[in-house]
Amino acid sequence: MNIVDFPFQTEIEVSFRDLDPMGHVNNAVYFTYIETARGRFMGQFFDIRKPLDIPLILGEASCRYISPLLFGECVRVKLGISRFGTKSFDMVYRLEGGDGRLVATARSTMIMFDYARGQSIPVPESFKAQVAAFQGHWPPPA
Amino acid sequence: MNIVDFPFQTEIEVSFRDLDPMGHVNNAVYFTYIETARGRFMGQFFDIRKPLDIPLILGEASCRYISPLLFGECVRVKLGISRFGTKSFDMVYRLEGGDGRLVATARSTMIMFDYARGQSIPVPESFKAQVAAFQGHWPPPA
Amino acid sequence: MNIVDFPFQTEIEVSFRDLDPMGHVNNAVYFTYIETARGRFMGQFFDIRKPLDIPLILGEASCRYISPLLFGECVRVKLGISRFGTKSFDMVYRLEGGDGRLVATARSTMIMFDYARGQSIPVPESFKAQVAAFQGHWPPPA
Amino acid sequence: MNIVDFPFQTEIEVSFRDLDPMGHVNNAVYFTYIETARGRFMGQFFDIRKPLDIPLILGEASCRYISPLLFGECVRVKLGISRFGTKSFDMVYRLEGGDGRLVATARSTMIMFDYARGQSIPVPESFKAQVAAFQGHWPPPA
Repeated sequence: MNIVDFPFQTEIEVSFRDLDPMGHVNNAVYFTYIETARGRFMGQFFDIRKPLDIPLILGEASCRYISPLLFGECVRVKLGISRFGTKSFDMVYRLEGGDGRLVATARSTMIMFDYARGQSIPVPESFKAQVAAFQGHWPPPA
Repeated sequence: MNIVDFPFQTEIEVSFRDLDPMGHVNNAVYFTYIETARGRFMGQFFDIRKPLDIPLILGEASCRYISPLLFGECVRVKLGISRFGTKSFDMVYRLEGGDGRLVATARSTMIMFDYARGQSIPVPESFKAQVAAFQGHWPPPA
Repeated sequence: MNIVDFPFQTEIEVSFRDLDPMGHVNNAVYFTYIETARGRFMGQFFDIRKPLDIPLILGEASCRYISPLLFGECVRVKLGISRFGTKSFDMVYRLEGGDGRLVATARSTMIMFDYARGQSIPVPESFKAQVAAFQGHWPPPA
Repeated sequence: MNIVDFPFQTEIEVSFRDLDPMGHVNNAVYFTYIETARGRFMGQFFDIRKPLDIPLILGEASCRYISPLLFGECVRVKLGISRFGTKSFDMVYRLEGGDGRLVATARSTMIMFDYARGQSIPVPESFKAQVAAFQGHWPPPA
């Protein structure tokens, strides 16, 4: 089994407004694509129509840009949770262009957060179990 | 025949980034939805992968906001060319929410423009004919 | 007195992300500039750090595009309240480029709205009085 | 000398459109702030009014989110070039809120790129010399 076989994938159409004067998708927009894909993934575990009820905040995000994304393309975002910590977890992403070429890879760290109390909290065992049930044996042992 | 029966329609998914602190889609984003829908419509007549080759500039745009658009919705944009002038033409839009309710109406005036010469040009008869063939007898006589 | 002598003006720097592949500021971004300028104007009458407490919603907005805005420019937005209705009021805007040229004109209709009760409300006399005190005899009688 | 003493800093005002439904600046917008600050920094060495002439592409970007940025704040972005490679260089950023608190730290890798030939090129010695003259002995030896 390969890291390429992500447990979840979704498609997003590139809009004209996503482009910048270089004629390709602006670098900041990749993080919006990642956020959109993450929202769809999380929608399996949380009610994303109430974003303020989801006990998560973004701790860190990074993207490696490999090939420009162009207007008229659909970007395919593949993703999964790669590691659970005590109060946080990591996610990895692979973005592919309309022709399947690798466009970018990305990572993010999500922190479990209780907005009412204003502090981070342990990752619930129930959430870990749901994710394990969904992702199966992914990621494979290194 | 009713103005509601627009000759073209397309769907756009509301993304989290489209929302503002009020919890609904920000007013400026409606113009991006309209631009996306117009691009898909124009893609029938022009090669929209080369936006710089499309001899059009936006002269005017307006939107009337009727009902808030929420996260998780798909907005349906219905549109058509409502009037041809000598060097410009008007477009009308109707935006509907996921449940079919009227969300907004909008208008825009497009100016036929030769970028190389930097000046407006007459609307080509060939373009008018293509649009007439596509739209049929729309809009109906007032 | 001339419509050009607006009672309020403010400057906004064009950012790279505001541009689109045509190399100029995207049409939807003008509505963001207008929103930013309106927020600074309203900040004289309301606490804009709590946008959810401001009893206003946007009913309608329009923009006429006259000259492209380029990267590196500061856009100057001039504005004022041009008319009070019973439950709404109109605002007019004039956008100028770094060299003072006219870039766009715009209009918006704001609706006085009680978010808690979910309905429009009469424009408070106190707000009208504050605006009159600030704007003086603007706009001049037609 | 401390990493905090960055060779360059600039301010950006948070706009309403930068916020998301959580009431703070959206994560992707931090990369736009970083891009804006980087553009102002690069404007000392290149003509940023012609972005297509600047021989740089973004290879990688990351951000660590520490404190939410709110509406009405000015974000101060401090930055510098932290390392030169053969065909690329690294930049580090520190974002501070209006009250001076640490809001985020970020990194990016820029690749020297010849758009006409479509390939990466060595970092010019002249650019390195200009940066050294501007930054002085920054960053200090580890």
